[in-house]
Amino acid sequence: MDQSSFSTKQSILFSHKFAQITKALWKSVEKDWQQWIKPYNLNINEHQILWIAYHMEGASISDIAKFGVMHVSTAFNFSKKLEERELLTFSKKTNDKRNTYIELTPEGDKLLLATIEAYNPDTYSVYNGALPIKELYGKFPDFSELTTILRHIYGEDFMEIFEKSLFTFDEEFTEENGTLTPVKPSE
Amino acid sequence: MDQSSFSTKQSILFSHKFAQITKALWKSVEKDWQQWIKPYNLNINEHQILWIAYHMEGASISDIAKFGVMHVSTAFNFSKKLEERELLTFSKKTNDKRNTYIELTPEGDKLLLATIEAYNPDTYSVYNGALPIKELYGKFPDFSELTTILRHIYGEDFMEIFEKSLFTFDEEFTEENGTLTPVKPSE
Repeated sequence: MDQSSFSTKQSILFSHKFAQITKALWKSVEKDWQQWIKPYNLNINEHQILWIAYHMEGASISDIAKFGVMHVSTAFNFSKKLEERELLTFSKKTNDKRNTYIELTPEGDKLLLATIEAYNPDTYSVYNGALPIKELYGKFPDFSELTTILRHIYGEDFMEIFEKSLFTFDEEFTEENGTLTPVKPSE
Repeated sequence: MDQSSFSTKQSILFSHKFAQITKALWKSVEKDWQQWIKPYNLNINEHQILWIAYHMEGASISDIAKFGVMHVSTAFNFSKKLEERELLTFSKKTNDKRNTYIELTPEGDKLLLATIEAYNPDTYSVYNGALPIKELYGKFPDFSELTTILRHIYGEDFMEIFEKSLFTFDEEFTEENGTLTPVKPSE
């Protein structure tokens, strides 16, 4: 059997299956995420901007675009809207005039924390879909194949920020009676 | 340690990680899919409608919405556009006046097949990202954890159509020198 022809069919079957799976999962996540943050008058892009800026000190607009998987213009426009709501401020660095950096205001910190405190485990259908896997194996799936594919597409930088943001989230919050509160006071 | 508080933090960490992963993967797939079918003047929704109608004989608009993970109005509006391009026809069944069924015209079949013939394994970055996994394990990942989560969210019907469409694709096409051609003549 010709190797390249074999590859074409395998490739299209794999890619089409994967396209279906990622579309269906993302559409479910998107719907649940929107629902969660709607009471705070935020959309997903805005919530991601607050989230990234909270966890990554000195994040630039291009960091946010990269890590949030949005166009630079999307990252800028939604950051601008958050700035108008006084949830963040823009700044330049004296040694780097090209990039715009953002920093959350105390109100921005407070709003992000309010969304996290309001988080309910039932928010995401994907979480409830993963629970039986946790019960079976004793832990949540770590999706090592997916992160391998992500690393190929988005590179090491992306994966580092990705892992770091999960790690700092874990470090920065304590929990009591199901409510998360930040370890460091939100100055 | 209080079980419910433990769950909240685990839940938000899992869900946020999963949200990031599915967003990043879907955005990559979406970009590559759009690029692939652009020369045929199709968008992703339209391509999905053609694809589903080709593989599922007698598909209704609500089947397409369900399996394509789009709103019924989106499925209807894009089907309408394809009908105006004479790529499909609408029909009603005498015993079921509520649903609208769609069927591809010979031109619709031909256009879908043209996209499949033009498919190049390099189309999708996710495919190239998965190749090292195939080299390591001898097969592509089957993402059993993801399909478990999908089954929870979308139900058995969805999974059946999902599996069936991959199976029929595999059956319906032969390949030679990297080009796929349909086994059944496209009447």
